[in-house]
Amino acid sequence: MAGKVVSAMSISVDGYVGTPDMDQWMPVHERLHRWVFDLAAWRSRQGMEGGREDVSSGLVAEEFATTGAYVLGRNMFDFGEEPWGDEPPYEAPVFVVTNRERETLVKGKTTFHFVTGGLELAIERAKEAAGDRNVFVSGGASIVQQSIKAGLLDELHLHQVPVLLGEGIRLWDGIGTQWKELAPARVTLGEGVTHLYYTF
Amino acid sequence: MAGKVVSAMSISVDGYVGTPDMDQWMPVHERLHRWVFDLAAWRSRQGMEGGREDVSSGLVAEEFATTGAYVLGRNMFDFGEEPWGDEPPYEAPVFVVTNRERETLVKGKTTFHFVTGGLELAIERAKEAAGDRNVFVSGGASIVQQSIKAGLLDELHLHQVPVLLGEGIRLWDGIGTQWKELAPARVTLGEGVTHLYYTF
Repeated sequence: MAGKVVSAMSISVDGYVGTPDMDQWMPVHERLHRWVFDLAAWRSRQGMEGGREDVSSGLVAEEFATTGAYVLGRNMFDFGEEPWGDEPPYEAPVFVVTNRERETLVKGKTTFHFVTGGLELAIERAKEAAGDRNVFVSGGASIVQQSIKAGLLDELHLHQVPVLLGEGIRLWDGIGTQWKELAPARVTLGEGVTHLYYTF
Repeated sequence: MAGKVVSAMSISVDGYVGTPDMDQWMPVHERLHRWVFDLAAWRSRQGMEGGREDVSSGLVAEEFATTGAYVLGRNMFDFGEEPWGDEPPYEAPVFVVTNRERETLVKGKTTFHFVTGGLELAIERAKEAAGDRNVFVSGGASIVQQSIKAGLLDELHLHQVPVLLGEGIRLWDGIGTQWKELAPARVTLGEGVTHLYYTF
């Protein structure tokens, strides 16, 4: 059985997933991802012990366990390459959508493949690599928007954070104007976050 | 004990609550409110029998039962005055925010008061009329946005409908750029709708 193509975003109630203002990048990132940093499943993947074992940690653990390959935008890769260091947290094949050819890069348990043929091809190659597990479109916002617009996702996980930010990068820009019906798959109330899992 | 100031909106996953395009008004309105039309509590308030008795109907019944007065924008009143007929569904005092003076209007169990002193005054007068019950800021979008921006709401009920519309009137425009922290109060999965109740 082929896996699904899944994406997930931490998002404010008013639909923002980040900010284009570099002075505000860190506080916005911290506010949107605060719910995850203290979870046991997240800490474990970062090589840290301890953390909270709750429903949110269970969902994150499930996300890791069911993912066989990742797709990343170039900006997210460029941004992460240095801070991830020698042990990036993916621990799986990662397909980076980019215009620049680059040789495959192995770091710890993660292998980065650079795909210059576009998003659809990157997802196709990730599907092959993932086998019967899922492909996880990890971001940034632009790659997730393109995936929604092109109808490439099977599931979208919104980790809705209880704050109104009032401005920033809107996940819902540029997803096309054709109505897309979703089916509510699961709703889970975590601590400081509401997990809204939709299927297309 | 004074009641709370509550607002509620039917909203798509991508944050739209309507459309400025009059040709699309009816299909968008129907899609966003489809979840409510068949509920027993809704039908009963429109003078109809039958309908579904489920968790969503329970929440709508609760909304009616706990509301002592309503606040409406002028556009919503102008738009509704004719279709509501002689028995508007509010069955309570309604305070309409408007620039045009007009005498108090009694229709069935509903009394419309026209307030020219602005939104805050309308909410103040509605609070007095509601006693220990809640004031319900019923819409349209502009009056809800103004209420959020001015910090006048205690609770916001989002009836999130599982569709991406891609364009329309965004509830989250014009609510100010200062971060507003919310507390998730209740999450309820209904049929074709997810009820997200937040408190400020």
